[in-house]
Amino acid sequence: MQNFWDQRYAQRVKLMKSSAIRDLLKLTEQPEIISFAGGLPAPDVFPIEQVDAASHKVLQERGAQALQYGPSEGYGPLLELIARTASRDGLPITPENVFITSGSQQGLDFIGRLLVNPGDLVLVESPTYMGALQALAPYGAEYVTIPSDEHGMITSSLEEVLATRKPKLMYVLPNFQNPAGVTMSLERRRQLVELAIRYEIPIIEDDPYSQLRFEGEHLPSLLTLENELRGTEEDTYRGYIIQLNTFSKVLAPGLRVAWMIAAPELVRKLVQSKQGADLQTASLNQMIAYELMRDGFIERHIPLIRRTYRERRDVMLNAMDEHFPACIHWTRPEGGMFLWITLPEGMNATELLREAVKENVAFVPGASFHAEGGVQNTLRLSFSNATPERIREGIARLGRVFHKAVAAQTTTASTHV
Amino acid sequence: MQNFWDQRYAQRVKLMKSSAIRDLLKLTEQPEIISFAGGLPAPDVFPIEQVDAASHKVLQERGAQALQYGPSEGYGPLLELIARTASRDGLPITPENVFITSGSQQGLDFIGRLLVNPGDLVLVESPTYMGALQALAPYGAEYVTIPSDEHGMITSSLEEVLATRKPKLMYVLPNFQNPAGVTMSLERRRQLVELAIRYEIPIIEDDPYSQLRFEGEHLPSLLTLENELRGTEEDTYRGYIIQLNTFSKVLAPGLRVAWMIAAPELVRKLVQSKQGADLQTASLNQMIAYELMRDGFIERHIPLIRRTYRERRDVMLNAMDEHFPACIHWTRPEGGMFLWITLPEGMNATELLREAVKENVAFVPGASFHAEGGVQNTLRLSFSNATPERIREGIARLGRVFHKAVAAQTTTASTHV
Repeated sequence: MQNFWDQRYAQRVKLMKSSAIRDLLKLTEQPEIISFAGGLPAPDVFPIEQVDAASHKVLQERGAQALQYGPSEGYGPLLELIARTASRDGLPITPENVFITSGSQQGLDFIGRLLVNPGDLVLVESPTYMGALQALAPYGAEYVTIPSDEHGMITSSLEEVLATRKPKLMYVLPNFQNPAGVTMSLERRRQLVELAIRYEIPIIEDDPYSQLRFEGEHLPSLLTLENELRGTEEDTYRGYIIQLNTFSKVLAPGLRVAWMIAAPELVRKLVQSKQGADLQTASLNQMIAYELMRDGFIERHIPLIRRTYRERRDVMLNAMDEHFPACIHWTRPEGGMFLWITLPEGMNATELLREAVKENVAFVPGASFHAEGGVQNTLRLSFSNATPERIREGIARLGRVFHKAVAAQTTTASTHV
Repeated sequence: MQNFWDQRYAQRVKLMKSSAIRDLLKLTEQPEIISFAGGLPAPDVFPIEQVDAASHKVLQERGAQALQYGPSEGYGPLLELIARTASRDGLPITPENVFITSGSQQGLDFIGRLLVNPGDLVLVESPTYMGALQALAPYGAEYVTIPSDEHGMITSSLEEVLATRKPKLMYVLPNFQNPAGVTMSLERRRQLVELAIRYEIPIIEDDPYSQLRFEGEHLPSLLTLENELRGTEEDTYRGYIIQLNTFSKVLAPGLRVAWMIAAPELVRKLVQSKQGADLQTASLNQMIAYELMRDGFIERHIPLIRRTYRERRDVMLNAMDEHFPACIHWTRPEGGMFLWITLPEGMNATELLREAVKENVAFVPGASFHAEGGVQNTLRLSFSNATPERIREGIARLGRVFHKAVAAQTTTASTHV
């Protein structure tokens, strides 16, 4: 039976990519390793007691409903509450605009399922979230990349790319981007949205982190800007944006509850797709999220997450200033969970990871965040998961690895002179 | 924006089917309707207190783990417990054979994703579970059907079909089949498995109901038979069967926890596929299922489900004997949740449903369970969800609808003579 299954896989399996992150999570599970690799929230801020209380309340008050099959679009009261909350700043979001998914990763998979034909071009930032590349690749997506800097996607060349390459979709993380930690400026957001409208290209706005801002001013979402710019008087949003939101970063990823906001026509197709894919997201989990959102707990809880992550970011940045060689550069995120390191040209982050693991510290090499490949000297650090003490120690270890590598490179360089 | 999305859907969207069941669930949600339509477990037997206690235990003892991201293959201790349980009767099932899905529906979707190319033939029973047709259709599956009778799939013509049509996969529900309620005889199981081995065609053994047997003898699974027949001395199962199992029918569907047993090569690809599709099934839910399986609760709980469903089946069968016209035939299932009605030739179950809803009773017309279509005079009743009183009343209402339709048909027939 050795090659039995290999001979039977569908074509799309050849397009699947394994996630370096997920494989690394396994490698770095040993407690002696200080891992900045996985994009894991801090367990310290999980509201265990509140989830427990909400679970108890839901089961005692509506247990038969929490344990039964429910509608594919999601738990009705949760759809309504999300719509009401999203409409606060004047957006015409109704429950027909909302679709519950089992994490935002599933939202990405469903977008691929519905909208991507083999060979379709998807425009992404470089670097971008590798999970999006993984989700869309099996549907045959090909990528066109736009470089980003500390103000997010560089939009100056965007119009030319849209006009000549005609991508079917654009995928953007405007706030505290995963992996780079950068935030797209207001001016660039406007430019992006104007071009999306002019060229009629939908934008997937992936927005898991916007509530985790530590400093600076909140910027309007692409959804808000697009709705203003189109200037219609719709009762129900029908624009070009598909916004992905999640409870994973403000409550807990282990619940697997997220939501999309999109045009109702698209939501209806998504619901139909979900019937065949997994029927529905777990009823109990949706009802727990609903309870904790409805009574205002999540809103009261977010400041604690912000304070915790801000402290960890500061500890990491300070330790990096202290321990890293001067030739290494990094981003200074205003929120979220990640920062991004650029090593000198010619250094290879994947090779450095092997050295780092010997020193019991881990990160994610940047290569798999670059859709078009070829970039070897970048890497991502997550500052959300480890405690400040372990961040200090881990960055010191990483500093030793980097100094050694830089010294080796200098030696090699001078040998070659 | 009217046709905006319509013009952008991927080819596979055209292949998607909406589920009559799910749409009907909406129609028949009003309390005055007695619905035999949805395949819903009885809420009366949901172990609300035990789920509540397990949730509390898991959150108090391992809360940070229950709320955090976890491995894509599933919660380790659950994989081990499932493997140990499945190995009881000598099968070489290891944790590497087990893969956790968000319901068995997701298992079907993943099988389509990994194994079905557009145009691939999948052999199914007629009738078969419409959710399987829905799951595989978007991947381009085409169907070849084998009729079934009260002993399940009729295997006499199977070899010829395998030799000439060469299906890529077979999909079978051997126990208390959804929708027909019939169980495949031991002889036919043997024949099916022998042919699968001879022609090297994988079988998806969908087995959600095998523990819900009210009477008669438990029959060995296709997995067990196949493992015997191949007669290898493997440490880890590597055969042709992909078995789908679920907690939905023995615990609660609202948790969305199910599992597959398959060759480890296939499981590894499934895990990779899950990374892109939704990362993982909810950690909390897997840990709740683990607690309730580990301490023996599920095993102690199953007899109550069996007693409850057996009583409801008996009430339904007795009421049908009393109220249905003699020209209508139905199956007498030994377990599970469904029975299957065949109306006289020329009657149309979809038209009858409209009349039934006027009488405040509902069922699922059989047409969408027939992959090749064309059958209009069948329908499915679920006996699991309604109380005995409502079953009696609902069947009496349905009897009136059927008597009227039969009388009208007789009149039409005699008019035409």
